[in-house]
Amino acid sequence: MARINQNYDKLGASYLFAEISRRAKAFAEKNPGVELLRLGIGDTTLPLAPTVVAGLRAGAEKLGAAETYTGYGDYEGEKWMREAIASVYRERGVNLDVSEIFVSDGAKSDSSNIQSIFSSDAVVAIQDPAYPVYVDSNVMAGRTGAYDPARQQYQGIIYMPCTEANGFFPELPGQKVDLVYLCSPNNPTGAVATHAQLSLFVEYARARKAVIVFDAAYSTFIRDPSLPQSIYEIPGARSCAIELNSFSKTAGFTGVRLGWAVVPKELTCEATPPGKLNAMWYRRQSTFFNGPSNVVQAGGAAALTPRGREECRAIVDHYLESARIIREGFTLAGLTCFGGTNAPYVWARTPGGMSSWDFFDKLLREAHVVTTPGSGFGPSGEGYVRLSAFGRRSDTERAVAAVRAALGKR
Amino acid sequence: MARINQNYDKLGASYLFAEISRRAKAFAEKNPGVELLRLGIGDTTLPLAPTVVAGLRAGAEKLGAAETYTGYGDYEGEKWMREAIASVYRERGVNLDVSEIFVSDGAKSDSSNIQSIFSSDAVVAIQDPAYPVYVDSNVMAGRTGAYDPARQQYQGIIYMPCTEANGFFPELPGQKVDLVYLCSPNNPTGAVATHAQLSLFVEYARARKAVIVFDAAYSTFIRDPSLPQSIYEIPGARSCAIELNSFSKTAGFTGVRLGWAVVPKELTCEATPPGKLNAMWYRRQSTFFNGPSNVVQAGGAAALTPRGREECRAIVDHYLESARIIREGFTLAGLTCFGGTNAPYVWARTPGGMSSWDFFDKLLREAHVVTTPGSGFGPSGEGYVRLSAFGRRSDTERAVAAVRAALGKR
Repeated sequence: MARINQNYDKLGASYLFAEISRRAKAFAEKNPGVELLRLGIGDTTLPLAPTVVAGLRAGAEKLGAAETYTGYGDYEGEKWMREAIASVYRERGVNLDVSEIFVSDGAKSDSSNIQSIFSSDAVVAIQDPAYPVYVDSNVMAGRTGAYDPARQQYQGIIYMPCTEANGFFPELPGQKVDLVYLCSPNNPTGAVATHAQLSLFVEYARARKAVIVFDAAYSTFIRDPSLPQSIYEIPGARSCAIELNSFSKTAGFTGVRLGWAVVPKELTCEATPPGKLNAMWYRRQSTFFNGPSNVVQAGGAAALTPRGREECRAIVDHYLESARIIREGFTLAGLTCFGGTNAPYVWARTPGGMSSWDFFDKLLREAHVVTTPGSGFGPSGEGYVRLSAFGRRSDTERAVAAVRAALGKR
Repeated sequence: MARINQNYDKLGASYLFAEISRRAKAFAEKNPGVELLRLGIGDTTLPLAPTVVAGLRAGAEKLGAAETYTGYGDYEGEKWMREAIASVYRERGVNLDVSEIFVSDGAKSDSSNIQSIFSSDAVVAIQDPAYPVYVDSNVMAGRTGAYDPARQQYQGIIYMPCTEANGFFPELPGQKVDLVYLCSPNNPTGAVATHAQLSLFVEYARARKAVIVFDAAYSTFIRDPSLPQSIYEIPGARSCAIELNSFSKTAGFTGVRLGWAVVPKELTCEATPPGKLNAMWYRRQSTFFNGPSNVVQAGGAAALTPRGREECRAIVDHYLESARIIREGFTLAGLTCFGGTNAPYVWARTPGGMSSWDFFDKLLREAHVVTTPGSGFGPSGEGYVRLSAFGRRSDTERAVAAVRAALGKR
């Protein structure tokens, strides 16, 4: 008599973005002919850069000839791919060995799976608000108690509030913590951590043999040279931090799927010598995964050539300009906004203390604009909505105008 | 103080194929100039079919234009992809709803991850020998005790011997079992289960609310029309079986990465209504995975067009002929062989009761041929080696000749 993993029953009925999609669809069905404008899910809309398309095409064609066909690749990604990634890190003064880089089908997979190499009783701390996958994957793995609807928290998870008062970067946790998830540039708040802020967490983790999971999926949106793009720019981080990154937002690979994790050889935790966590992640990837697609890696490698990087940078510039337009427009509409510089997300405070979902519904109903309710990212997200700069420019401009009209400030 | 998942320490030092690769590399380094011929890992060597390359190319080009670019797809794969898969099942009289099909980056991912929706104390039964991922993923998830070197078994796993005596299909387990992994055509033995054999397991699972995980990754190698290609050809299987399949061997996608899982709506287990396991797998995939690559799906869809299927069938025919050559050659070399018809693997008994690894080393040393030791697939694999038909034809012929020479029977 097989039984289910009952941890699934602790989860809310649906993943945040599925619920948004459900409400948007329901509205569209009730209001045929109305066009919805999306500032919600962080889904890219600009086409792939020409160099990247050429790389993907070449990757496909290579497989069509007997002389150049290849089958299984390395579980951790092709060596030339990992070398290309390492060379980008070197520009920031970060030296990684290729054996510390694990190419995957995306940062979502890595950010959900990384918990599996740690003990089932690990105490997990997350920024609040945060990308829901950090919490949900730990709930499903059994590291939490029940969901407490009053506090909007899972028992056992340490929520580190990110608020206007602390500039959306958390204080160090007061209690024992084993795994700390940090994301910078932050999804959803758009806040970018400084050297000083990250240094505090690195010192904290080193002193306590805690492990930081640093999600840098939006690092290429950082234009301010004083801000760290990798946690390994902080001295000592190699012994306490895993870093995740992605081609999704940098190269438009949301649907193409490519990312990577860095698990340094020096990384340690309790009773665990250097090298072991790196070997465990290799074992995890080689058992549960068969390497990223060879065709996709050919596209990723093209995105990391000088020309590919130039073209991708122009795409990121475009999204950054959209973020500026959103932030400016929502500010003119009377809302208090955060983020949106060095980050593709704008974090807008709802007017008059309205709840996130109420404001979501109001903007959907009155402006036909889909946003993301801040409360979907955690209790401290209540009273905010996340606005994404990844929409088409013309749609973004129309959405901003529609919101200004709906809120009575043209 | 983070601690590791100590279940990893129960595992052997390396994944089977990594160990084979290590021994082959060590031999090659000690014997420069010697060419190794590979009958080991099941890695495809024929180029992709022209229609499939065109599909991949079109998938890439579509992403290069603003009008046709798409970002995130459905977590369970594009609907047209799932419809194409459903239509292939319909030819076998199996009707699946598209909501029962979950497209993934490959059957390896699915076969390792599927255990996660079941309780942590589920009792797991596997065919012995079996693809190592079924066991290893359950070891890493904590469903087993320590490895017992004397019995070559993990404590807590039910090993179902597949031997010459039972035609390499197991008897029903005598003890309580919750999850049963079956693979047909079998990796590694090449045995193909009959309707009658599968029916016994379906009845067993239904009576006990156990769940069968049926790995059909080699189903297109079945040419005998009387043999089932899907477990859903067995009445009642929809309420007790999950089926996994793959484009890896059918379309040469070992490196391209595409597969699918079927989780029927009727599937139940203890205290679990129909629909729930289907919903749980959706929740798992939408949290831990972001859908298969859109470019890769474009290639997969091309492989399922009438023309694509015809071209892929010719590729499978070619591998089947290689399997025939291996089986015939090894038989002429004096070995007793099984499998290799309706399957890409030949299962050869070692001569004179030699151990699998000793015979592996002998063939490596004396014939420069890499095989896969049967003992790497489980204790009942001891005394056999697995031979793969996926090598280049000329290499396969040379390997067979080298083995015949080494074993003294030209």
